[in-house]
Amino acid sequence: MRDSLVAAAFQLFLERGYEQTTVDEIVALAGVGRRSFFRYFPSKEDVVFPDHERCLAEMNDFLGDGSGEGGDGGADDPVARVCDAARVVLRMYAENPTFSVQRYRLTKKVPGLRTYELSVVWRYERALAEYLRGRFAGRRDGTLRADVIAAAVVAAHNNGLRSWLRSDGQSDASAEVDHALAHVQQVFGSDPDPVGPPQKPTAEPAKEPRGDDVVVVISRRGAPMWRVVQEVETALGRDPE
Amino acid sequence: MRDSLVAAAFQLFLERGYEQTTVDEIVALAGVGRRSFFRYFPSKEDVVFPDHERCLAEMNDFLGDGSGEGGDGGADDPVARVCDAARVVLRMYAENPTFSVQRYRLTKKVPGLRTYELSVVWRYERALAEYLRGRFAGRRDGTLRADVIAAAVVAAHNNGLRSWLRSDGQSDASAEVDHALAHVQQVFGSDPDPVGPPQKPTAEPAKEPRGDDVVVVISRRGAPMWRVVQEVETALGRDPE
Repeated sequence: MRDSLVAAAFQLFLERGYEQTTVDEIVALAGVGRRSFFRYFPSKEDVVFPDHERCLAEMNDFLGDGSGEGGDGGADDPVARVCDAARVVLRMYAENPTFSVQRYRLTKKVPGLRTYELSVVWRYERALAEYLRGRFAGRRDGTLRADVIAAAVVAAHNNGLRSWLRSDGQSDASAEVDHALAHVQQVFGSDPDPVGPPQKPTAEPAKEPRGDDVVVVISRRGAPMWRVVQEVETALGRDPE
Repeated sequence: MRDSLVAAAFQLFLERGYEQTTVDEIVALAGVGRRSFFRYFPSKEDVVFPDHERCLAEMNDFLGDGSGEGGDGGADDPVARVCDAARVVLRMYAENPTFSVQRYRLTKKVPGLRTYELSVVWRYERALAEYLRGRFAGRRDGTLRADVIAAAVVAAHNNGLRSWLRSDGQSDASAEVDHALAHVQQVFGSDPDPVGPPQKPTAEPAKEPRGDDVVVVISRRGAPMWRVVQEVETALGRDPE
Protein backbone atom coordinates (compact mmCIF):
# COMPACT_ATOMS: atom_id res chain seq x y z
CA MET A 1 0.00 0.00 0.00
CA ARG A 2 2.85 2.30 0.84
CA ASP A 3 4.38 1.73 -2.58
CA SER A 4 1.13 2.28 -4.40
CA LEU A 5 0.63 5.58 -2.55
CA VAL A 6 4.08 6.72 -3.66
CA ALA A 7 3.39 5.62 -7.22
CA ALA A 8 0.03 7.40 -7.30
CA ALA A 9 1.52 10.53 -5.80
CA PHE A 10 4.30 10.72 -8.35
CA GLN A 11 1.97 10.05 -11.22
CA LEU A 12 -0.12 13.04 -10.16
CA PHE A 13 2.86 15.25 -9.32
CA LEU A 14 4.22 14.69 -12.80
CA GLU A 15 0.87 15.20 -14.52
CA ARG A 16 -0.39 18.21 -12.56
CA GLY A 17 2.47 19.52 -10.54
CA TYR A 18 3.22 19.03 -6.89
CA GLU A 19 1.41 22.06 -5.51
CA GLN A 20 -1.69 21.32 -7.53
CA THR A 21 -2.04 17.78 -6.24
CA THR A 22 -3.96 17.13 -3.04
CA VAL A 23 -3.69 14.20 -0.68
CA ASP A 24 -7.31 13.41 -1.48
CA GLU A 25 -6.45 12.98 -5.13
CA ILE A 26 -3.53 10.75 -4.26
CA VAL A 27 -5.58 8.43 -2.09
CA ALA A 28 -8.37 8.35 -4.68
CA LEU A 29 -5.96 7.22 -7.36
CA ALA A 30 -4.33 4.69 -5.06
CA GLY A 31 -7.74 3.43 -4.01
CA VAL A 32 -7.13 3.76 -0.29
CA GLY A 33 -8.47 5.94 2.50
CA ARG A 34 -7.05 9.24 3.63
CA ARG A 35 -6.14 7.76 6.97
CA SER A 36 -3.93 5.17 5.31
CA PHE A 37 -1.95 7.92 3.67
CA PHE A 38 -1.23 9.64 6.94
CA ARG A 39 -0.37 6.36 8.59
CA TYR A 40 2.60 6.13 6.26
CA PHE A 41 3.34 9.77 5.59
CA PRO A 42 2.92 12.61 8.07
CA SER A 43 2.55 15.10 5.22
CA LYS A 44 2.43 15.41 1.47
CA GLU A 45 6.12 16.29 1.47
CA ASP A 46 7.01 13.00 3.11
CA VAL A 47 5.64 10.95 0.24
CA VAL A 48 8.24 12.59 -2.00
CA PHE A 49 11.04 11.16 0.15
CA PRO A 50 9.64 7.82 1.24
CA ASP A 51 12.97 6.10 1.91
CA HIS A 52 15.01 8.60 3.88
CA GLU A 53 13.94 7.41 7.31
CA ARG A 54 14.87 3.84 6.50
CA CYS A 55 18.08 5.06 4.94
CA LEU A 56 19.00 7.16 7.96
CA ALA A 57 18.38 4.17 10.20
CA GLU A 58 20.53 2.03 7.93
CA MET A 59 23.32 4.59 7.99
CA ASN A 60 23.21 4.74 11.77
CA ASP A 61 23.29 0.95 11.97
CA PHE A 62 26.26 0.90 9.67
CA LEU A 63 28.09 3.51 11.73
CA GLY A 64 27.18 1.75 14.94
CA ASP A 65 28.50 -1.61 13.80
CA GLY A 66 32.02 -2.29 15.00
CA SER A 67 32.68 1.39 14.85
CA GLY A 68 35.91 1.12 16.69
CA GLU A 69 37.76 -2.00 17.29
CA GLY A 70 39.08 -4.60 15.07
CA GLY A 71 37.79 -5.77 11.82
CA ASP A 72 39.49 -4.97 8.61
CA GLY A 73 41.86 -2.06 8.48
CA GLY A 74 39.91 0.05 6.01
CA ALA A 75 36.75 -0.03 8.04
CA ASP A 76 38.60 1.41 10.97
CA ASP A 77 39.70 4.60 9.25
CA PRO A 78 37.08 7.13 10.34
CA VAL A 79 37.13 9.06 7.07
CA ALA A 80 36.80 5.89 5.01
CA ARG A 81 33.98 4.79 7.24
CA VAL A 82 31.89 7.93 6.84
CA CYS A 83 32.49 7.74 3.10
CA ASP A 84 31.09 4.22 3.16
CA ALA A 85 28.18 5.44 5.25
CA ALA A 86 27.44 8.04 2.57
CA ARG A 87 27.34 5.23 0.02
CA VAL A 88 24.34 3.82 1.88
CA VAL A 89 22.45 6.91 0.72
CA LEU A 90 23.71 6.57 -2.81
CA ARG A 91 22.47 3.01 -2.99
CA MET A 92 18.99 4.18 -2.03
CA TYR A 93 19.02 6.59 -4.98
CA ALA A 94 20.64 4.17 -7.40
CA GLU A 95 18.21 1.36 -6.61
CA ASN A 96 15.51 3.22 -8.45
CA PRO A 97 16.96 5.51 -11.10
CA THR A 98 13.69 6.58 -12.72
CA PHE A 99 12.12 7.54 -9.45
CA SER A 100 15.25 9.36 -8.28
CA VAL A 101 15.54 11.37 -11.47
CA GLN A 102 11.85 12.32 -11.38
CA ARG A 103 12.17 13.42 -7.80
CA TYR A 104 15.30 15.41 -8.56
CA ARG A 105 13.42 17.39 -11.21
CA LEU A 106 10.45 17.88 -8.91
CA THR A 107 12.58 19.03 -5.99
CA LYS A 108 14.35 21.59 -8.14
CA LYS A 109 11.01 23.16 -9.01
CA VAL A 110 9.33 23.22 -5.60
CA PRO A 111 11.05 25.36 -2.95
CA GLY A 112 9.22 23.59 -0.11
CA LEU A 113 10.61 20.25 -1.22
CA ARG A 114 14.06 21.71 -1.55
CA THR A 115 13.83 22.88 2.06
CA TYR A 116 12.57 19.49 3.13
CA GLU A 117 15.50 17.88 1.39
CA LEU A 118 17.92 20.24 3.11
CA SER A 119 16.66 19.10 6.47
CA VAL A 120 17.10 15.46 5.46
CA VAL A 121 20.62 16.13 4.22
CA TRP A 122 21.33 17.89 7.49
CA ARG A 123 20.28 14.79 9.40
CA TYR A 124 22.67 12.63 7.38
CA GLU A 125 25.40 15.16 7.99
CA ARG A 126 24.70 15.16 11.74
CA ALA A 127 24.82 11.37 11.81
CA LEU A 128 28.23 11.39 10.16
CA ALA A 129 29.47 14.23 12.37
CA GLU A 130 28.29 12.51 15.55
CA TYR A 131 30.09 9.36 14.56
CA LEU A 132 33.29 11.28 13.84
CA ARG A 133 33.00 13.25 17.06
CA GLY A 134 33.00 9.96 18.86
CA ARG A 135 36.01 8.75 16.95
CA PHE A 136 37.89 11.99 17.51
CA ALA A 137 36.83 12.35 21.13
CA GLY A 138 39.52 13.78 23.32
CA ARG A 139 41.60 14.84 20.37
CA ARG A 140 42.50 18.39 19.64
CA ASP A 141 39.79 20.13 17.64
CA GLY A 142 37.89 16.85 17.51
CA THR A 143 34.45 18.36 17.04
CA LEU A 144 35.71 20.90 14.54
CA ARG A 145 37.35 18.22 12.45
CA ALA A 146 34.31 15.98 12.75
CA ASP A 147 31.99 18.73 11.52
CA VAL A 148 34.25 19.75 8.66
CA ILE A 149 34.82 16.23 7.41
CA ALA A 150 31.13 15.34 7.67
CA ALA A 151 30.23 18.43 5.65
CA ALA A 152 32.89 17.67 3.06
CA VAL A 153 31.73 14.07 2.69
CA VAL A 154 28.13 15.14 2.25
CA ALA A 155 29.08 17.82 -0.27
CA ALA A 156 31.18 15.38 -2.26
CA HIS A 157 28.50 12.70 -2.18
CA ASN A 158 25.90 15.18 -3.35
CA ASN A 159 28.17 16.47 -6.08
CA GLY A 160 28.58 12.95 -7.44
CA LEU A 161 24.92 12.16 -6.95
CA ARG A 162 23.84 15.30 -8.80
CA SER A 163 26.12 14.47 -11.73
CA TRP A 164 24.38 11.14 -12.01
CA LEU A 165 20.89 12.67 -11.63
CA ARG A 166 21.66 15.27 -14.25
CA SER A 167 22.71 12.51 -16.63
CA ASP A 168 19.15 11.19 -16.15
CA GLY A 169 20.60 8.22 -14.40
CA GLN A 170 22.64 7.26 -17.47
CA SER A 171 26.09 7.66 -15.98
CA ASP A 172 27.55 5.28 -13.43
CA ALA A 173 26.28 6.46 -10.05
CA SER A 174 28.85 4.52 -8.04
CA ALA A 175 31.71 5.73 -10.17
CA GLU A 176 30.59 9.35 -9.83
CA VAL A 177 30.31 9.14 -6.07
CA ASP A 178 33.45 7.05 -5.64
CA HIS A 179 35.40 9.67 -7.53
CA ALA A 180 33.99 12.48 -5.39
CA LEU A 181 34.59 10.63 -2.15
CA ALA A 182 38.11 9.70 -3.18
CA HIS A 183 38.77 13.42 -3.41
CA VAL A 184 37.64 13.91 0.18
CA GLN A 185 39.64 10.95 1.38
CA GLN A 186 42.68 12.31 -0.31
CA VAL A 187 42.23 15.76 1.20
CA PHE A 188 41.64 14.49 4.72
CA GLY A 189 43.58 11.28 4.42
CA SER A 190 43.57 9.31 7.58
CA ASP A 191 45.65 11.82 9.44
CA PRO A 192 44.04 11.87 12.86
CA ASP A 193 45.18 15.40 13.49
CA PRO A 194 45.92 17.57 10.50
CA VAL A 195 45.86 20.71 12.60
CA GLY A 196 49.10 22.05 13.83
CA PRO A 197 52.37 23.13 12.42
CA PRO A 198 52.99 21.68 9.01
CA GLN A 199 54.44 18.27 9.50
CA LYS A 200 56.26 17.56 6.37
CA PRO A 201 58.93 15.02 6.60
CA THR A 202 57.39 11.67 6.10
CA ALA A 203 59.85 9.09 5.08
CA GLU A 204 59.30 6.62 2.32
CA PRO A 205 57.16 3.99 3.82
CA ALA A 206 58.86 0.80 2.86
CA LYS A 207 56.06 -1.45 1.72
CA GLU A 208 57.08 -4.84 2.85
CA PRO A 209 60.20 -4.70 4.90
CA ARG A 210 62.32 -7.53 3.72
CA GLY A 211 64.67 -9.56 5.78
CA ASP A 212 67.40 -7.02 6.01
CA ASP A 213 65.35 -3.89 5.46
CA VAL A 214 65.97 -0.81 7.43
CA VAL A 215 63.31 1.80 7.68
CA VAL A 216 64.08 5.37 8.59
CA VAL A 217 61.48 7.85 9.69
CA ILE A 218 62.31 11.48 10.13
CA SER A 219 59.99 13.78 11.90
CA ARG A 220 60.13 17.06 13.68
CA ARG A 221 61.15 16.92 17.26
CA GLY A 222 57.98 18.81 18.15
CA ALA A 223 55.78 16.26 16.45
CA PRO A 224 53.35 14.62 18.84
CA MET A 225 54.07 11.06 19.84
CA TRP A 226 51.09 9.66 17.98
CA ARG A 227 52.56 11.05 14.78
CA VAL A 228 55.80 9.28 15.42
CA VAL A 229 53.96 6.06 16.20
CA GLN A 230 51.88 6.50 13.09
CA GLU A 231 54.95 6.98 10.96
CA VAL A 232 56.64 3.99 12.48
CA GLU A 233 53.59 1.89 11.74
CA THR A 234 53.38 3.21 8.23
CA ALA A 235 57.03 2.52 7.69
CA LEU A 236 56.59 -1.00 8.94
CA GLY A 237 53.85 -1.49 6.43
CA ARG A 238 51.10 -1.68 8.97
CA ASP A 239 48.45 0.57 7.73
CA PRO A 240 47.45 2.85 10.58
CA GLU A 241 44.08 3.33 8.93
CA MET B 1 9.86 50.54 12.39
CA ARG B 2 11.56 47.39 11.17
CA ASP B 3 13.71 47.32 14.30
CA SER B 4 10.79 47.86 16.61
CA LEU B 5 8.94 44.98 14.98
CA VAL B 6 11.92 42.71 15.56
CA ALA B 7 12.19 43.90 19.16
CA ALA B 8 8.48 43.37 19.81
CA ALA B 9 8.58 39.95 18.18
CA PHE B 10 11.49 38.76 20.29
CA GLN B 11 10.00 40.11 23.47
CA LEU B 12 6.89 38.03 22.81
CA PHE B 13 8.79 34.95 21.60
CA LEU B 14 10.77 34.94 24.82
CA GLU B 15 7.75 35.56 27.03
CA ARG B 16 5.26 33.19 25.39
CA GLY B 17 7.17 31.04 22.99
CA TYR B 18 7.47 31.33 19.26
CA GLU B 19 4.55 29.13 18.27
CA GLN B 20 2.22 30.83 20.73
CA THR B 21 2.90 34.31 19.39
CA THR B 22 0.83 35.64 16.51
CA VAL B 23 1.72 38.37 14.05
CA ASP B 24 -1.26 40.33 15.37
CA GLU B 25 0.25 40.35 18.83
CA ILE B 26 3.59 41.48 17.45
CA VAL B 27 2.13 44.42 15.55
CA ALA B 28 -0.04 45.38 18.53
CA LEU B 29 3.00 45.54 20.78
CA ALA B 30 5.03 47.42 18.17
CA GLY B 31 2.12 49.80 17.62
CA VAL B 32 2.00 49.37 13.86
CA GLY B 33 -0.40 47.84 11.39
CA ARG B 34 -0.38 44.28 10.16
CA ARG B 35 0.41 45.44 6.66
CA SER B 36 3.61 47.09 7.88
CA PHE B 37 4.78 43.79 9.29
CA PHE B 38 4.35 42.00 5.99
CA ARG B 39 6.01 44.84 4.13
CA TYR B 40 9.21 43.99 5.97
CA PHE B 41 8.76 40.31 6.63
CA PRO B 42 7.04 37.83 4.33
CA SER B 43 6.29 35.55 7.28
CA LYS B 44 6.66 35.21 11.02
CA GLU B 45 9.78 33.14 10.48
CA ASP B 46 11.47 35.96 8.62
CA VAL B 47 11.34 38.28 11.60
CA VAL B 48 13.56 35.81 13.46
CA PHE B 49 16.29 36.27 10.87
CA PRO B 50 15.96 39.90 9.91
CA ASP B 51 19.52 40.41 8.67
CA HIS B 52 20.28 37.43 6.49
CA GLU B 53 19.14 39.00 3.23
CA ARG B 54 21.35 42.02 3.80
CA CYS B 55 24.16 39.75 4.86
CA LEU B 56 23.85 37.54 1.80
CA ALA B 57 23.95 40.62 -0.40
CA GLU B 58 27.01 41.84 1.46
CA MET B 59 28.71 38.48 1.02
CA ASN B 60 27.99 38.48 -2.69
CA ASP B 61 29.31 42.03 -2.99
CA PHE B 62 32.44 40.99 -1.20
CA LEU B 63 32.95 37.98 -3.44
CA GLY B 64 32.20 40.01 -6.52
CA ASP B 65 34.76 42.70 -5.73
CA GLY B 66 38.07 42.14 -7.48
CA SER B 67 37.40 38.47 -7.36
CA GLY B 68 40.16 37.59 -9.71
CA GLU B 69 43.12 39.57 -10.70
CA GLY B 70 45.65 41.49 -8.84
CA GLY B 71 45.48 43.01 -5.49
CA ASP B 72 47.18 41.53 -2.52
CA GLY B 73 48.15 37.92 -2.55
CA GLY B 74 45.91 36.87 0.32
CA ALA B 75 42.80 38.20 -1.30
CA ASP B 76 43.61 36.28 -4.42
CA ASP B 77 43.76 32.91 -2.76
CA PRO B 78 40.28 31.48 -3.35
CA VAL B 79 40.17 29.56 -0.08
CA ALA B 80 41.26 32.60 1.92
CA ARG B 81 38.68 34.65 0.14
CA VAL B 82 35.74 32.41 0.93
CA CYS B 83 36.93 32.28 4.53
CA ASP B 84 36.82 36.07 4.59
CA ALA B 85 33.37 35.97 3.02
CA ALA B 86 32.21 33.71 5.84
CA ARG B 87 33.46 36.30 8.30
CA VAL B 88 30.86 38.69 6.88
CA VAL B 89 28.25 36.41 8.41
CA LEU B 90 30.09 36.20 11.69
CA ARG B 91 30.15 39.97 11.97
CA MET B 92 26.39 40.08 11.60
CA TYR B 93 26.05 37.72 14.56
CA ALA B 94 28.75 39.37 16.64
CA GLU B 95 27.33 42.86 16.15
CA ASN B 96 24.48 41.99 18.45
CA PRO B 97 25.45 39.26 20.89
CA THR B 98 22.31 39.32 23.03
CA PHE B 99 20.02 39.04 20.06
CA SER B 100 22.14 36.31 18.48
CA VAL B 101 22.20 34.23 21.65
CA GLN B 102 18.45 34.60 22.16
CA ARG B 103 17.82 33.54 18.60
CA TYR B 104 20.16 30.60 18.93
CA ARG B 105 18.15 29.30 21.88
CA LEU B 106 14.87 29.92 20.09
CA THR B 107 16.03 28.19 16.91
CA LYS B 108 17.13 25.12 18.82
CA LYS B 109 13.63 24.76 20.26
CA VAL B 110 11.52 25.36 17.15
CA PRO B 111 11.97 22.83 14.32
CA GLY B 112 10.44 25.18 11.76
CA LEU B 113 13.04 27.82 12.54
CA ARG B 114 15.80 25.27 12.36
CA THR B 115 14.62 24.35 8.87
CA TYR B 116 14.45 28.00 7.92
CA GLU B 117 17.99 28.47 9.13
CA LEU B 118 19.16 25.47 7.13
CA SER B 119 17.85 27.06 3.98
CA VAL B 120 19.66 30.30 4.82
CA VAL B 121 22.89 28.44 5.50
CA TRP B 122 22.44 26.64 2.21
CA ARG B 123 22.21 29.97 0.39
CA TYR B 124 25.48 31.12 1.96
CA GLU B 125 27.07 27.84 1.00
CA ARG B 126 25.83 28.17 -2.57
CA ALA B 127 27.22 31.71 -2.77
CA LEU B 128 30.64 30.48 -1.68
CA ALA B 129 30.49 27.46 -3.96
CA GLU B 130 29.47 29.56 -6.97
CA TYR B 131 32.38 31.88 -6.37
CA LEU B 132 34.80 28.96 -6.09
CA ARG B 133 33.35 27.29 -9.18
CA GLY B 134 34.19 30.46 -11.04
CA ARG B 135 37.69 30.51 -9.66
CA PHE B 136 38.25 26.83 -10.42
CA ALA B 137 36.58 26.96 -13.83
CA GLY B 138 38.25 24.75 -16.37
CA ARG B 139 40.29 22.97 -13.75
CA ARG B 140 40.01 19.31 -13.10
CA ASP B 141 37.23 18.55 -10.64
CA GLY B 142 36.62 22.27 -10.30
CA THR B 143 33.00 22.02 -9.25
CA LEU B 144 33.68 19.14 -6.91
CA ARG B 145 36.45 21.03 -5.17
CA ALA B 146 34.33 24.17 -5.05
CA ASP B 147 31.44 22.34 -3.41
CA VAL B 148 33.62 20.53 -0.90
CA ILE B 149 35.55 23.63 0.14
CA ALA B 150 32.38 25.72 0.44
CA ALA B 151 30.80 23.07 2.65
CA ALA B 152 33.93 22.80 4.78
CA VAL B 153 34.13 26.57 5.22
CA VAL B 154 30.49 26.79 6.25
CA ALA B 155 30.84 23.86 8.66
CA ALA B 156 33.94 25.39 10.24
CA HIS B 157 32.35 28.81 10.49
CA ASN B 158 29.28 27.33 12.12
CA ASN B 159 31.36 25.28 14.50
CA GLY B 160 33.15 28.42 15.69
CA LEU B 161 29.95 30.43 15.75
CA ARG B 162 28.18 27.78 17.82
CA SER B 163 31.02 27.72 20.34
CA TRP B 164 30.57 31.42 20.80
CA LEU B 165 26.77 31.18 21.00
CA ARG B 166 27.01 28.39 23.53
CA SER B 167 29.27 30.58 25.65
CA ASP B 168 26.34 33.02 25.69
CA GLY B 169 28.43 35.40 23.65
CA GLN B 170 31.12 35.52 26.34
CA SER B 171 33.97 34.00 24.36
CA ASP B 172 35.74 35.81 21.53
CA ALA B 173 33.63 35.23 18.43
CA SER B 174 36.35 36.23 16.00
CA ALA B 175 38.93 34.07 17.69
CA GLU B 176 36.60 31.05 17.63
CA VAL B 177 35.84 31.45 13.96
CA ASP B 178 39.40 32.35 13.00
CA HIS B 179 40.61 29.18 14.62
CA ALA B 180 38.02 27.09 12.81
CA LEU B 181 38.69 28.72 9.45
CA ALA B 182 42.44 28.38 9.90
CA HIS B 183 41.84 24.65 10.13
CA VAL B 184 40.07 24.66 6.78
CA GLN B 185 42.74 26.81 5.19
CA GLN B 186 45.36 24.44 6.42
CA VAL B 187 43.54 21.40 5.08
CA PHE B 188 42.88 22.88 1.68
CA GLY B 189 45.77 25.27 1.54
CA SER B 190 46.01 27.10 -1.71
CA ASP B 191 46.92 24.02 -3.64
CA PRO B 192 45.52 24.69 -7.10
CA ASP B 193 44.87 21.02 -7.77
CA PRO B 194 44.91 18.66 -4.86
CA VAL B 195 43.15 15.97 -6.84
CA GLY B 196 45.17 13.37 -8.59
CA PRO B 197 47.17 10.34 -7.77
CA PRO B 198 47.96 10.31 -4.10
CA GLN B 199 51.02 12.38 -3.66
CA LYS B 200 52.89 10.85 -0.82
CA PRO B 201 54.75 13.56 0.95
CA THR B 202 57.92 11.93 -0.13
CA ALA B 203 60.87 12.14 2.09
CA GLU B 204 61.07 15.86 2.13
CA PRO B 205 64.20 15.57 4.25
CA ALA B 206 65.99 15.70 0.99
CA LYS B 207 66.13 19.41 1.75
CA GLU B 208 68.08 20.13 4.83
CA PRO B 209 66.75 18.61 7.96
CA ARG B 210 66.77 21.28 10.56
CA GLY B 211 68.12 21.07 14.04
CA ASP B 212 64.85 20.12 15.59
CA ASP B 213 64.19 17.07 13.47
CA VAL B 214 64.04 13.68 15.00
CA VAL B 215 65.29 10.63 13.23
CA VAL B 216 63.67 7.36 14.03
CA VAL B 217 65.48 4.34 12.78
CA ILE B 218 63.89 0.96 12.77
CA SER B 219 65.82 -1.96 11.61
CA ARG B 220 65.83 -5.66 11.87
CA ARG B 221 68.10 -6.86 14.52
CA GLY B 222 70.09 -8.67 11.90
CA ALA B 223 70.48 -5.79 9.48
CA PRO B 224 74.07 -4.95 8.76
CA MET B 225 75.29 -1.59 9.95
CA TRP B 226 76.02 -0.39 6.44
CA ARG B 227 72.32 -0.77 5.63
CA VAL B 228 71.38 1.35 8.59
CA VAL B 229 73.84 4.04 7.60
CA GLN B 230 72.64 3.88 4.03
CA GLU B 231 69.00 4.36 5.01
CA VAL B 232 69.80 7.24 7.32
CA GLU B 233 71.73 8.92 4.57
CA THR B 234 68.94 8.36 2.11
CA ALA B 235 66.43 9.79 4.52
CA LEU B 236 68.63 12.78 5.08
CA GLY B 237 68.85 13.30 1.37
CA ARG B 238 72.46 12.44 1.02
CA ASP B 239 72.90 10.11 -1.81
CA PRO B 240 74.48 6.95 -0.52
CA GLU B 241 75.74 6.30 -4.05
